[in-house]
Amino acid sequence: MPLFKGVVPPVVTPLNERFEVDYVSFSRVIDHLLDAGVHGLFVLGSTSEVVFHDEATRVKIIEHAVEQTGGRVSIFAGVIAPTTECVIEHARNAQAAGVDAVVVTAPFYTRTSQPEIIDHFRYVREALDVPVIAYDIPVCVGTKLERATTVTLAREGAIAGLKDSSGDDGNFRYVLMDMAADPNFFAMTGSEILVDGALGMGAHGVVPGLGNVDPRGYVRLWDLCQAGDIAAARAEQERLCRLFEMVRVSLPRTSTGSAGIGAFKTAMRSLGIIDTNLMPRPQRALNGEEAARIDTILRATGLLE
Amino acid sequence: MPLFKGVVPPVVTPLNERFEVDYVSFSRVIDHLLDAGVHGLFVLGSTSEVVFHDEATRVKIIEHAVEQTGGRVSIFAGVIAPTTECVIEHARNAQAAGVDAVVVTAPFYTRTSQPEIIDHFRYVREALDVPVIAYDIPVCVGTKLERATTVTLAREGAIAGLKDSSGDDGNFRYVLMDMAADPNFFAMTGSEILVDGALGMGAHGVVPGLGNVDPRGYVRLWDLCQAGDIAAARAEQERLCRLFEMVRVSLPRTSTGSAGIGAFKTAMRSLGIIDTNLMPRPQRALNGEEAARIDTILRATGLLE
Amino acid sequence: MPLFKGVVPPVVTPLNERFEVDYVSFSRVIDHLLDAGVHGLFVLGSTSEVVFHDEATRVKIIEHAVEQTGGRVSIFAGVIAPTTECVIEHARNAQAAGVDAVVVTAPFYTRTSQPEIIDHFRYVREALDVPVIAYDIPVCVGTKLERATTVTLAREGAIAGLKDSSGDDGNFRYVLMDMAADPNFFAMTGSEILVDGALGMGAHGVVPGLGNVDPRGYVRLWDLCQAGDIAAARAEQERLCRLFEMVRVSLPRTSTGSAGIGAFKTAMRSLGIIDTNLMPRPQRALNGEEAARIDTILRATGLLE
Amino acid sequence: MPLFKGVVPPVVTPLNERFEVDYVSFSRVIDHLLDAGVHGLFVLGSTSEVVFHDEATRVKIIEHAVEQTGGRVSIFAGVIAPTTECVIEHARNAQAAGVDAVVVTAPFYTRTSQPEIIDHFRYVREALDVPVIAYDIPVCVGTKLERATTVTLAREGAIAGLKDSSGDDGNFRYVLMDMAADPNFFAMTGSEILVDGALGMGAHGVVPGLGNVDPRGYVRLWDLCQAGDIAAARAEQERLCRLFEMVRVSLPRTSTGSAGIGAFKTAMRSLGIIDTNLMPRPQRALNGEEAARIDTILRATGLLE
Repeated sequence: MPLFKGVVPPVVTPLNERFEVDYVSFSRVIDHLLDAGVHGLFVLGSTSEVVFHDEATRVKIIEHAVEQTGGRVSIFAGVIAPTTECVIEHARNAQAAGVDAVVVTAPFYTRTSQPEIIDHFRYVREALDVPVIAYDIPVCVGTKLERATTVTLAREGAIAGLKDSSGDDGNFRYVLMDMAADPNFFAMTGSEILVDGALGMGAHGVVPGLGNVDPRGYVRLWDLCQAGDIAAARAEQERLCRLFEMVRVSLPRTSTGSAGIGAFKTAMRSLGIIDTNLMPRPQRALNGEEAARIDTILRATGLLE
Repeated sequence: MPLFKGVVPPVVTPLNERFEVDYVSFSRVIDHLLDAGVHGLFVLGSTSEVVFHDEATRVKIIEHAVEQTGGRVSIFAGVIAPTTECVIEHARNAQAAGVDAVVVTAPFYTRTSQPEIIDHFRYVREALDVPVIAYDIPVCVGTKLERATTVTLAREGAIAGLKDSSGDDGNFRYVLMDMAADPNFFAMTGSEILVDGALGMGAHGVVPGLGNVDPRGYVRLWDLCQAGDIAAARAEQERLCRLFEMVRVSLPRTSTGSAGIGAFKTAMRSLGIIDTNLMPRPQRALNGEEAARIDTILRATGLLE
Repeated sequence: MPLFKGVVPPVVTPLNERFEVDYVSFSRVIDHLLDAGVHGLFVLGSTSEVVFHDEATRVKIIEHAVEQTGGRVSIFAGVIAPTTECVIEHARNAQAAGVDAVVVTAPFYTRTSQPEIIDHFRYVREALDVPVIAYDIPVCVGTKLERATTVTLAREGAIAGLKDSSGDDGNFRYVLMDMAADPNFFAMTGSEILVDGALGMGAHGVVPGLGNVDPRGYVRLWDLCQAGDIAAARAEQERLCRLFEMVRVSLPRTSTGSAGIGAFKTAMRSLGIIDTNLMPRPQRALNGEEAARIDTILRATGLLE
Repeated sequence: MPLFKGVVPPVVTPLNERFEVDYVSFSRVIDHLLDAGVHGLFVLGSTSEVVFHDEATRVKIIEHAVEQTGGRVSIFAGVIAPTTECVIEHARNAQAAGVDAVVVTAPFYTRTSQPEIIDHFRYVREALDVPVIAYDIPVCVGTKLERATTVTLAREGAIAGLKDSSGDDGNFRYVLMDMAADPNFFAMTGSEILVDGALGMGAHGVVPGLGNVDPRGYVRLWDLCQAGDIAAARAEQERLCRLFEMVRVSLPRTSTGSAGIGAFKTAMRSLGIIDTNLMPRPQRALNGEEAARIDTILRATGLLE
């Protein structure tokens, strides 16, 4: 059985006005997700703004998530650091804090080859007890996990699964086909807008940033796909696509990064889940006019009255 | 007067067989550079494999460099971390350890805009006492420091200088022209092979990774350019270009990253400066055959008999 | 009703040993496709190696295709030229030769903006009587047709449809959603390996280069998707994905371009449809060993005994 | 002796209000360049908007240039077509029209490998009597001519020289070093703003689009570099850099392509050399406000009173 399947949102990290983690809001986010029926939680991913938080804060975020979740679902934690030894050090802290698996990218800032990336994951695997999930996110890391890299690591057991945020669904499909005979391997898409297609080719789940805003929508989409109700699944996916248009509202005034996470936080504030829409410095928060446009989208997609 | 000028090599960080920093070799590297007459040292840059070292090691590297240098030249230290607060935290440690300036990149892993990058440098500047040098290295960071970004920051005093490893010498020239009236601003090229051209358009110095192997060559090149002996400068630069061919010896067996720093370390081992050519995991060291080809290059360029 | 729907292969252009178009083989290709039940033909696309043929040859290819098809299905023709006036001139020839629509890219070699691309299609539209289909193929053209560009052109009637070979299925989905209310607009994917997903989000057809090798497979896939038999469609798509692996057989000995079309031609030669696997100069044909590996793939996927 | 050296501007192709070539203005452009002392002419390059003109017009442009030049300097002509046979066909026309050499790029639209590119140039070489100059312009073609490709072709005599518009001056320098022993090979930079540096590393000339606006400036820069007056050369180059800022005036309203050539045409109109600033469809001409800003630049750099 795969370790994870279903809807596993990358949990947004809310801040207070002093730019510290707002744990009260964070608890509300977790309950909001679990009440909606999500199947797991992914803390400290890119959507969680993981690279903005120091190691002590990262550990505290994990501990808080573990406690608030109380075993209701499994949790995996991103361990995002540029190189092997740093990943191992942070991953041991995450493991000690009680996560069920860690999510690890290829090295970044430095330049590595696919064979070196394979070694990277092997070293990480050897140093840990919890399973390792490979995180393919070239837009942040600068390197693609090639099909052969992922499959080599999966076949030898160095990775238990894959989170694919590469946007290369052709490559993703070949990985799924290559690993189809292994009942334990799992692969999840990081896409918000091509989930029905990804599940249709055998993906085991979805890790949608937008799931912070509308977890029920993604759970519904998952259930419809599981039930084989393709027409209804497509309709639900298209509603979520219209909702996802929020990530363009502040462009080009802000960066793409701020535009996406900033939109999620702004929507969650409108829905009463978190208190501010702030992001860590130097990311620029959405302004009042942009927030109003997001409310319009929330109303049009049935999330706000 | 500019804070730095001349030849300021990014100091290689030698390792022992246990992949720990070999401080005995490190001392030899520093003396090797200072004996050759370099004008400053840049520790914890990309060539120093900074992102492979944890914070405690980084501080120790700085302290060792400061002590070994003993005030003979000024030292700047790379503070390479993905986001603003992490940079500030590390930069304060570097400052406390006695560096004369810190070198800071745009945020990485996350995606930021030029206005957000400007804010990033402002926040870093406000938090520190030592000068900040902007480090433009899109091949690692994924973002270019645009001309207007650099010039805005320089004019308001948020940065004291620029280290340009972008490969975009046209943009570099415009920055130099925009800042020509400011006697304090300085800009250094990170190129090994276009130094005469960069100095010819007004650059204040060079930060050559290859300077670890042949610091005398770069000092000679600098002196010839200062003296206006263009023909001799070109000849010396071309000899250094032939020496620089070492960075292709292990391609495509290793990554570009390993091929470059690995070649420098291998050459330095041949020259008796450091004990191993190892790089931190997962980087692949050059093998015996590749080392022999590097020796051939060292002999052809007069560094080895 | 959309002008085109279903399976519309981009027809391979076979050559004889003198590198001239082999019209006998070409007729066999067309019959091979029509006998398999394809719903239209796309001549002079990228897979047809259109840019290797001069204008006189292009016209002759169209005329031959029109005659051989004899009205059994509709035909659209690629009009691939760098700039507006050249496209118009060639498109008029294609129109005179009897095609049902022309397929036009953004300008290439030169650099244009999205507003200039919109004007380009408007000028082409004004100059012709036949419908214009926009061809989004950034890997050849260097520019992406942005969603707003395509939708603007579609809404004002400048284009009748879209052939999307961009690999950006998220953007493709938004175009489909934006145009869903228009019963005449159609959008077809150029992907060989994500067809079930594309049809599942509302695409009106597929233009698969691999359809030259196995047109029955793509017709079957289309029929299964139309019938809503998702499981069988996925199985057929996965068989076609395994067949598509042929495009990697000659890498990196040849370019990606030669590896793909060269593989199709080699497979078609093995299947007795065309006489040579040659491509126009300077493309390198697959060699005997590579052909043998392609035969293995053909046998494994049921196309060769 | 190299076939070409010195300043060889890529000659702008002026249009009349009906978007036809304005040969009266074209004659004035040629005289304007020759009167300034340029050492050769490059017609039908990217700056000449070559890909917008059909074959008959291209031939007429060459014939007009040959006649107007009357042997005062040598002329080379761009033969810009996507693939080998098309290049050969056009190149024969150019040869027949009397050019002294042709300038040829790697194939475009299609995807080729470096070995295929080498074959491409060999086939072109075999089909012609006039010398072939390789044109490295990845921003238009999508492929870089690698150092080994250029040097292989140069050593076997398939190409007589190189025009480098790649922006990769490191690679350019290595080509110059590799070919330094061959007195016939020549390499020219396509840069407007790094000419002193390029000549300083041994380039044989410059092909500056901006040379249409200020040919005397580039001739002066060439003369100063030849004379070894580095300080005066730098000052002149910096004046030309300030003049070159005109290419940003219409951004982002127009494309980069239109912004550059459009600025040159607008400036030449202000200087009374050509009648309109029009470019072929769909390129957007600079408007009145932008023209006024260009006049300001012309005045600031001493070209307009």
